[in-house]
Amino acid sequence: MNNFTYCVPTQIRFGKGQIACLAEELSKYGQNVLMVYGGGSIRRSGLYDQIHHLLKDFRVCELGGITPNPKITAVREGVAICRAHKIDVILAVGGGSCIDAAKNIACGAFYEGDPWDLVTDGSRITKALPIAVVLTVSATGSEMNNNAIISNEETHEKLGIVSDTLYPALSICDPTYLYTLPGRQTAAGTADIMSHVIEQYFQSYDGAYITDRLCESVLRTCIHYCPIALEHPDDYEARSNLMWASTLGLNHILTLGKGGAWSCHPMEHELSAYYDVTHGEGLAVLTPAWMSYVLGEQTVSRFAMYARNVWDIYEKDKYRAAYMGIKRTREFFNACGLPDTLLRLGIGRERFEEMAAEAVRTSGIATRSYVHLQKEDIVKIFDSCAV
Amino acid sequence: MNNFTYCVPTQIRFGKGQIACLAEELSKYGQNVLMVYGGGSIRRSGLYDQIHHLLKDFRVCELGGITPNPKITAVREGVAICRAHKIDVILAVGGGSCIDAAKNIACGAFYEGDPWDLVTDGSRITKALPIAVVLTVSATGSEMNNNAIISNEETHEKLGIVSDTLYPALSICDPTYLYTLPGRQTAAGTADIMSHVIEQYFQSYDGAYITDRLCESVLRTCIHYCPIALEHPDDYEARSNLMWASTLGLNHILTLGKGGAWSCHPMEHELSAYYDVTHGEGLAVLTPAWMSYVLGEQTVSRFAMYARNVWDIYEKDKYRAAYMGIKRTREFFNACGLPDTLLRLGIGRERFEEMAAEAVRTSGIATRSYVHLQKEDIVKIFDSCAV
Repeated sequence: MNNFTYCVPTQIRFGKGQIACLAEELSKYGQNVLMVYGGGSIRRSGLYDQIHHLLKDFRVCELGGITPNPKITAVREGVAICRAHKIDVILAVGGGSCIDAAKNIACGAFYEGDPWDLVTDGSRITKALPIAVVLTVSATGSEMNNNAIISNEETHEKLGIVSDTLYPALSICDPTYLYTLPGRQTAAGTADIMSHVIEQYFQSYDGAYITDRLCESVLRTCIHYCPIALEHPDDYEARSNLMWASTLGLNHILTLGKGGAWSCHPMEHELSAYYDVTHGEGLAVLTPAWMSYVLGEQTVSRFAMYARNVWDIYEKDKYRAAYMGIKRTREFFNACGLPDTLLRLGIGRERFEEMAAEAVRTSGIATRSYVHLQKEDIVKIFDSCAV
Repeated sequence: MNNFTYCVPTQIRFGKGQIACLAEELSKYGQNVLMVYGGGSIRRSGLYDQIHHLLKDFRVCELGGITPNPKITAVREGVAICRAHKIDVILAVGGGSCIDAAKNIACGAFYEGDPWDLVTDGSRITKALPIAVVLTVSATGSEMNNNAIISNEETHEKLGIVSDTLYPALSICDPTYLYTLPGRQTAAGTADIMSHVIEQYFQSYDGAYITDRLCESVLRTCIHYCPIALEHPDDYEARSNLMWASTLGLNHILTLGKGGAWSCHPMEHELSAYYDVTHGEGLAVLTPAWMSYVLGEQTVSRFAMYARNVWDIYEKDKYRAAYMGIKRTREFFNACGLPDTLLRLGIGRERFEEMAAEAVRTSGIATRSYVHLQKEDIVKIFDSCAV
């Protein structure tokens, strides 16, 4: 195994009714709360009112309307509120978009300049407000990690920040909040979880056996429960296993002793940045295409292992096993109702070159990923899923 | 999944050469260090001198001679040193025995009375000195959890304490320190890791699919690498995977969404308390015997799942699969050179009744374990491995 440092101080409160701890936990940080949330779903579900009731003794400011692929403009607004109202703690209520916006605001509050500066130069992140999370969409793992993604609509950039100051202090993960998720979002979330695991699993170092087995466990969980959650949205066992799979998928435990840059995420981030598509849907299109493209002499053993341990494919011929594993991956996404072409996402060939160049420029895909991909490789992958 | 709270703030520094961070990390807590360690192995390996060199700017007190199944008498000594020398941080150098002694000392330092009081009444634990660990024996998982076990040789009791104040602040886990472990200790350590996982895996709740899969991953890692480590003590891949398996085996991640009292550990703690046997060897004897005893209509499905997912036994008849899984478990321990009878541990039948009664008295084995076991059940299990 490669050397690593691991320390995740987030307190997870997992399960039905955990929201009851909210006021007591937030009071550890102060009385001035900035609540960051998205659209109307938490109003419809009653969660918005419940949180206001629980926090009736706090001074609660609000920043609603956070969109998928959250924007730096919202972060700027949030930072202004933090300064004007002496915010003590940020409460993100939602999924990865709200959490990531909250993380950008949390560190932006301690930076004098424009918060986008922190995205382009992470060394400027020195401190952050404490962050609490009430998770209502399960996918990004942001509730238990130190990353956040943010989009700049002016520059067509979707980039990440990383800082140990950004681990949420508290994340309340109640699987019943997922009951009202539309099927499309359940499927896209599962594709996102699986892609996180696949990015960590498909790396060239083979010595972290235990971490590979843990990755497979999380993938099997997604495969087992996503169809159940789609058919029975209020199946607690399915929702709770998927919710925890999502957290484990990206709290770094699945990369310990391994590591390397990612492949499908940098490519998908360009789709999202240029076309604002649903992240998980973009990943569902790109992942099997990427797998087919990078399958070769150097990678076939790991693909065959993936096929065997994730999909129960006991074919002895490594290439055949690998092909079958990739095919099953594509079929699984399709069966969950996810798109399989860029066309279905409304994306034509016009900007393939530009997006491929940006993926190379803004990530380690060309130098540190499983199979290093240059601009022309990425164009070919985009091409292979164009129709 | 059952509700849970999860928060493990320990910083893990894993891999070759991580000891280099020791002085910088310890300096966060102060200059007065109590180093707690065992016998001569760290002197022979050079680690003792290396640590003294690294800590040349600290005031280092020492408490050596910590034994396996560490004793409350050593804890009393350590507490006295903490008070006399205003210790800021305790540094445990060794395995679970040293870490557990350090944990008992760490909380004992803030308690006016006898430290054994904290064992009999955990509510008296309110505060603890920070604990750092340099791990040299991998088995107990104590480097990343909030538990500690301690023995009272006067009363023949081996009991645990649990408190969130007892998470080590830092654990340095360098797999090369395991190279000099005797084979007997490597095997006993692996049996201990596997038993921790088995205790968490064999619980009656079936809804935590993801946690079951993670348990199987850690068990497979032990099964894969223990024979390699026995044959090639300096195989880094084997030692590093086993070391991390040990930490994951008992940092609570394998019980999330499940839970229940343990079975083999309370029984084994009586063997250790009365006969001072090696913990992992006691577990290797008891675990297959316990499995055979509790196999029945209520448990057969889980045993068959264990056989399939851990031992690759694809037998369709559930009972046959379960039997085969138990047999493979026993054979694996034997192949690693572990004992299979209490006689080989020097234990006769004289105190079976007494030990069984104590196991019931001091644990949840009779009321909250996978299959509730009364005193007479435990005597039967002891009996079944008497010769």
